[in-house]
Amino acid sequence: MPPVGAALWRSLRAHQVYGANTDVGKTIVSTVLCNAINQHKASSPAAFLKPVSTGPLDDADDRHIQRYATGTLTKCLYQFDEPVSPHIAARQKLLTIPRDDEIVSSVHKTLSEWAGSGINFALVETAGGVHSPGPNGNSQADLYRPLRLPIVLIADSRLGGISSSISAYESLLLRGYDVHSVLLFRDDYYQNHEYLRTYFQKKSIPLVPLPQPPARPQSQDTDSLARDEEAMASYYERVARGSEVSGLVEELTAKNTERIERLEAMSSRAHDTIWYPFTQHHGMAPKDITVIDSAYDDFFQTYAPETASQEGGLRATFDGSASWWTQGLGHGNPELALSAAYAAGRYGHVMFPGNIHEPALSLAETLLETIGNPRFQKVFYTDNGSTGMEVAIKMGLRAACHRYGWDASQEQISILGLKGSYHGDTIGVMDCSEPSTYNKKVEWYRGRGYWFDFPQVRMSQGSWKIDMPESLQEALGPDLEYSSLNAVFDLEARVASEAGQRYKEYIRGTIETLVRDQGMKFGSVIMEPVILGAGGMLFCDPLFQRCLADVVRAHPELFSANAPPGRGAGSWSGLPIIFDEVFTGLYRLGRRSSASFLGVDADIAVNAKLLTGGLVPLCTTLASNEVFEAFSSPHKSDALLHGHSYTAHAVGCQVAVDSLRTMTQMEQGGSWHKYRQDWQPAPTASSPEVWSVWSHGLVQELSHAPSVEGLFALGTVLSISLRDTQGGGGYTSTAAQGLQQRLAAGGAHFQVHSRVLGNVLYLMSSVTSTPSAVREIEGVLRAALL
Amino acid sequence: MPPVGAALWRSLRAHQVYGANTDVGKTIVSTVLCNAINQHKASSPAAFLKPVSTGPLDDADDRHIQRYATGTLTKCLYQFDEPVSPHIAARQKLLTIPRDDEIVSSVHKTLSEWAGSGINFALVETAGGVHSPGPNGNSQADLYRPLRLPIVLIADSRLGGISSSISAYESLLLRGYDVHSVLLFRDDYYQNHEYLRTYFQKKSIPLVPLPQPPARPQSQDTDSLARDEEAMASYYERVARGSEVSGLVEELTAKNTERIERLEAMSSRAHDTIWYPFTQHHGMAPKDITVIDSAYDDFFQTYAPETASQEGGLRATFDGSASWWTQGLGHGNPELALSAAYAAGRYGHVMFPGNIHEPALSLAETLLETIGNPRFQKVFYTDNGSTGMEVAIKMGLRAACHRYGWDASQEQISILGLKGSYHGDTIGVMDCSEPSTYNKKVEWYRGRGYWFDFPQVRMSQGSWKIDMPESLQEALGPDLEYSSLNAVFDLEARVASEAGQRYKEYIRGTIETLVRDQGMKFGSVIMEPVILGAGGMLFCDPLFQRCLADVVRAHPELFSANAPPGRGAGSWSGLPIIFDEVFTGLYRLGRRSSASFLGVDADIAVNAKLLTGGLVPLCTTLASNEVFEAFSSPHKSDALLHGHSYTAHAVGCQVAVDSLRTMTQMEQGGSWHKYRQDWQPAPTASSPEVWSVWSHGLVQELSHAPSVEGLFALGTVLSISLRDTQGGGGYTSTAAQGLQQRLAAGGAHFQVHSRVLGNVLYLMSSVTSTPSAVREIEGVLRAALL
Repeated sequence: MPPVGAALWRSLRAHQVYGANTDVGKTIVSTVLCNAINQHKASSPAAFLKPVSTGPLDDADDRHIQRYATGTLTKCLYQFDEPVSPHIAARQKLLTIPRDDEIVSSVHKTLSEWAGSGINFALVETAGGVHSPGPNGNSQADLYRPLRLPIVLIADSRLGGISSSISAYESLLLRGYDVHSVLLFRDDYYQNHEYLRTYFQKKSIPLVPLPQPPARPQSQDTDSLARDEEAMASYYERVARGSEVSGLVEELTAKNTERIERLEAMSSRAHDTIWYPFTQHHGMAPKDITVIDSAYDDFFQTYAPETASQEGGLRATFDGSASWWTQGLGHGNPELALSAAYAAGRYGHVMFPGNIHEPALSLAETLLETIGNPRFQKVFYTDNGSTGMEVAIKMGLRAACHRYGWDASQEQISILGLKGSYHGDTIGVMDCSEPSTYNKKVEWYRGRGYWFDFPQVRMSQGSWKIDMPESLQEALGPDLEYSSLNAVFDLEARVASEAGQRYKEYIRGTIETLVRDQGMKFGSVIMEPVILGAGGMLFCDPLFQRCLADVVRAHPELFSANAPPGRGAGSWSGLPIIFDEVFTGLYRLGRRSSASFLGVDADIAVNAKLLTGGLVPLCTTLASNEVFEAFSSPHKSDALLHGHSYTAHAVGCQVAVDSLRTMTQMEQGGSWHKYRQDWQPAPTASSPEVWSVWSHGLVQELSHAPSVEGLFALGTVLSISLRDTQGGGGYTSTAAQGLQQRLAAGGAHFQVHSRVLGNVLYLMSSVTSTPSAVREIEGVLRAALL
Repeated sequence: MPPVGAALWRSLRAHQVYGANTDVGKTIVSTVLCNAINQHKASSPAAFLKPVSTGPLDDADDRHIQRYATGTLTKCLYQFDEPVSPHIAARQKLLTIPRDDEIVSSVHKTLSEWAGSGINFALVETAGGVHSPGPNGNSQADLYRPLRLPIVLIADSRLGGISSSISAYESLLLRGYDVHSVLLFRDDYYQNHEYLRTYFQKKSIPLVPLPQPPARPQSQDTDSLARDEEAMASYYERVARGSEVSGLVEELTAKNTERIERLEAMSSRAHDTIWYPFTQHHGMAPKDITVIDSAYDDFFQTYAPETASQEGGLRATFDGSASWWTQGLGHGNPELALSAAYAAGRYGHVMFPGNIHEPALSLAETLLETIGNPRFQKVFYTDNGSTGMEVAIKMGLRAACHRYGWDASQEQISILGLKGSYHGDTIGVMDCSEPSTYNKKVEWYRGRGYWFDFPQVRMSQGSWKIDMPESLQEALGPDLEYSSLNAVFDLEARVASEAGQRYKEYIRGTIETLVRDQGMKFGSVIMEPVILGAGGMLFCDPLFQRCLADVVRAHPELFSANAPPGRGAGSWSGLPIIFDEVFTGLYRLGRRSSASFLGVDADIAVNAKLLTGGLVPLCTTLASNEVFEAFSSPHKSDALLHGHSYTAHAVGCQVAVDSLRTMTQMEQGGSWHKYRQDWQPAPTASSPEVWSVWSHGLVQELSHAPSVEGLFALGTVLSISLRDTQGGGGYTSTAAQGLQQRLAAGGAHFQVHSRVLGNVLYLMSSVTSTPSAVREIEGVLRAALL
């Protein structure tokens, strides 16, 4: 089933009723609320939805409501007959059980219909407690989360009820729910309502105690039942006379109104106060700002004021940039929320120098093991890719200066890189890239390096092509063509080919000229393995990167006459090689490390973004012991004097440990098996496996589209270069905007939020994206481009 | 009461027994576990501690254990007579209620005694559910948190029990507890144990179902009671025959052993894998690394292997650097953990450009209001102080170049600052500081600016002195002396004084020389208001900073012949003024904004560290609309092309919103009243209020100490400059190490972790630190220095 918009209607106040436990009086409270609505003759009747009902007892809920809140519209979507948890009922009956997403869709559909037919107030009742399993065994709090209905929590007035009520509340908050009110029965002995009223007051959540309802009839004989009926009727009448309930209904209405008003004001208030990253504000209007109410799985819930009537005001919108390349395990992931909360509860933040705590150590050990590069021995923590790369260049430059005896305060030490590379926004790492739109207007930017142009890989007209840069065709030879992407990555075979020889000669010759003729000194090689992201999703021929690493390592004499002979396995040679895997690492391209595509073990590598599964900022810079030793001396001033206050913050480290574990388990458990199968042929013995969540067929088809210059898919990334009929491509091109608008209009079931880089439109999924969502987007692409 | 060490003994496995709800069989399960221990004749008897017991029902727990788990040592610390929640029992009886910290201390003391007397296994039973209130009305899960005992959770086998068990588990995790095992009764109808076994298996937590115990006797006559007794005895015998329980006891033992082994290995494993920030690793040994098991309030729980016998292996250690200046609301703060979890559950991370979500908008609006500088209109988000300062200088330089028509790619634009300033570790902001130990060995560092030497404030020999730098005594006049710190901050009076005139003349003359004679061009003024932190806790005469701002604004002609006339209120004049309040802002110095001490509204300001109350990295750069407009043009390339992937991450923003709210409420609610009173006299009409958590008397006393050169306290900061008999002070001095070691040895009740900056030892509390902790540390300082 497709995703649903979260529940929000201007005219319909819909709430979900959760109980702090089973048997706390959800139905009675619902009846009280429906009664309060129905009392107002002017308003439309209340509606009551029981998505899943079990057994005759629960079945009676509908009837109870109908009897005591006359006029209420009631509906039950799925009915089971046993008075036990639905998942057991379902299992026992061997029924056709509706899937969770079907239940959620049905609830949304019902509420939409009610909104359309003029209903103003609806309650969606759950069964049992907050975490009582739904028919498929998943917690209701998880099952209904895509709707994120505001919650009416029925607290427990019995002995122990304070505890279960607060725990239930915490479980709801952990899932990003908003609790709009709490009701419970007044018990003058236990006085839970007093305690809880104070508790919830601090959170600005109104609590209303209701009188205790009459006791259940002791027997089922006619007399008893009649007496019960009378007692219940008189109970409801008595409660209705109290002013607190009608006050509460007004408060619920006010909250719904406030919520919509806030959502409507947000883009204009953001326009007033927010200075957006990477954004030219000139000409930007509030309408250009998307209001995101919440997010779930791969989807934002975006506010769409123009449709806030029947269908509701929130739209599921596929997060097509994986939230700036960070998202891995889905938005609103309750496991990651719990990981974060655990670390926050156990530590808060603990200052790092000289100390160690479990999440930081676990993550360091897990990462070193996961990346599997035998050179890496040390982990340095920072907060984001940019700062992690600052650390990496400080490491690399020091290692080179230390070995070659250079005094960097007297002479410029440069880096060797690739054109179009990008390593972050702090000025030091900006200097690692060639002058470009990104950096050239930054007042303190001074590019310090040499950047190679390079051959690029793309699928075009049905086959995988490697295009040589025009100016280098003489040096690098003719364009290449391959039958599969696996063949492109078969570097063990390709490195000995003519292309490999030409690449190496060209690289070696260029370095020689730079150093000998131009007197440049180089301190490190920096590369984003395979794909240069921010530079425009440039898919570098992996052979070129491999050859660059090979040449640098094989010819230390190129860089210094003092170059010592090789120091054996694990020692850097020529220059320290830094891999910026901030974007490409940790399964973004389908493999743990993008370096593994190249068969090169770097001396320093940086990971971030997906590191925390897409939750909070964290970055690691991994390094060899040899690089580490270059900072070792009896003098403190020789140390790497770098460190941010929240270095190795426990929340980030814990979330990263759990994310990495989850992703590794997914890999080992075959979670991506279907995607992999689609990208047969199987890898050859010497090439790494190549696969994508985006279907191979789509890539081939689109490669024939008239407006498509070329495209590729790898791992979670799909990148489409569009022909730029106006300009010359690049970051300022507008060629991709048409396709971006087409995606924003969406498919049958959801819209797609995407980002463009000039004439390149890319899409990026999480590692948990479902084939159904991906295939629907592929349909939109086909419709737009073919 | 002083803080306690968290509970950990090598020989004693102590667990806390929590129930998922009341009446789930905690005591029966405890009896089963004690029985399993007592069966082994070789081992010492089990021990059972009920810290707080209510009513005859609960009172029976001890007797029940004694009867059915013969030989078990039992103890109850506090007994109440009513079978209701202890907080009501306590209230009703008007008893002298033990404070929460007293209860916690008593539990620790009892367990320590048991550990000392050879007991190997102890259970600490709670009352009711996880969040059932203790005698003072606080949740038990919060009340016992300082001990952080590993938990045996008794799940609920009844209808609804799946939900309450999982919610209880989540509430425990939110508080950083480790659940070591789950037990519950087998109920073949509801089968909660099956569901929960699978659930907890995924979390590697063993679950053991126990047979249902016999039903409670229907009446209290002798026969019934005798039958019940027989049934119970036979029940326990039957359970004891099952192998699962003894397996579980072994598993609990193994977990305790594993935990200790891990703690013992951590420093050496960290030594192998971690590259620490700001740390010279040369000569560093594993023993130099402190293992932190958890943290709570102001205290780390540090592992102390040498004392892991009777007193337990964990020591409460005051976090005397406020975890690198970040900590504000206490470690392991459950409110902040819940905030973080809520945002994670509602959003995860949402990519920011072009989007808005509630926490980011709320924080922007809250900050602008809290800081109260009318110039600030825009909020730019980054991840840490360093990146936020990179953004600030990009803003400032652009604004200046834009107004003055400078082409920064052709000429060097510098900044004006103060000597000893420090703005972070990325290379761009390193360039904003004068050459120093911190930066001068960084290969790409090139200081770009001019840095004024300045007069410093300190308490010495009982009075507040302002020392002029030696080389500037002619220009700035003689040293000054004040009777109170309020008088130092009375800038409205001082600015017109002779010192004010001299400062201004000196500043103006210096700038004139730099620009006219040396041809320098300046693009911004950067200052850390009042205290220059990393530079060595330098307390700058606020008058000097005020005069620098005044001169720059009053004399735009100093900087460019093109300087337009003033553009009215809110417009920057001369140079954009950037305040780096990363350390000094948001109540660190006792006021919301440290700029308010100076009476200067900056054009750009950066906040971080305390922004999230001390939980996760987040930074904001605030700017005026005029600075913002300098980036506005029809060209995207003119925009501020800066942005980290996790910009405005929801978790950080939500936690910051809640932290700011809490701190503002504390301020308004008079939480710091006692501290403020201590720092009378009341402020004069023209000076801001000045106060500190560190007592004024202490500062005066220590100022007479022979080894103290000078000191000061402001807000949460205490800074002591020690006489350096060996060297010249500065970052590489070792003068403060003796005092640091003395603090590490600790006072009567806890140790103190502190950081030194050369010959300066500073201590920093959170804003929630209690007078008792602060005064104990003051005692250690007195003992060490007087």
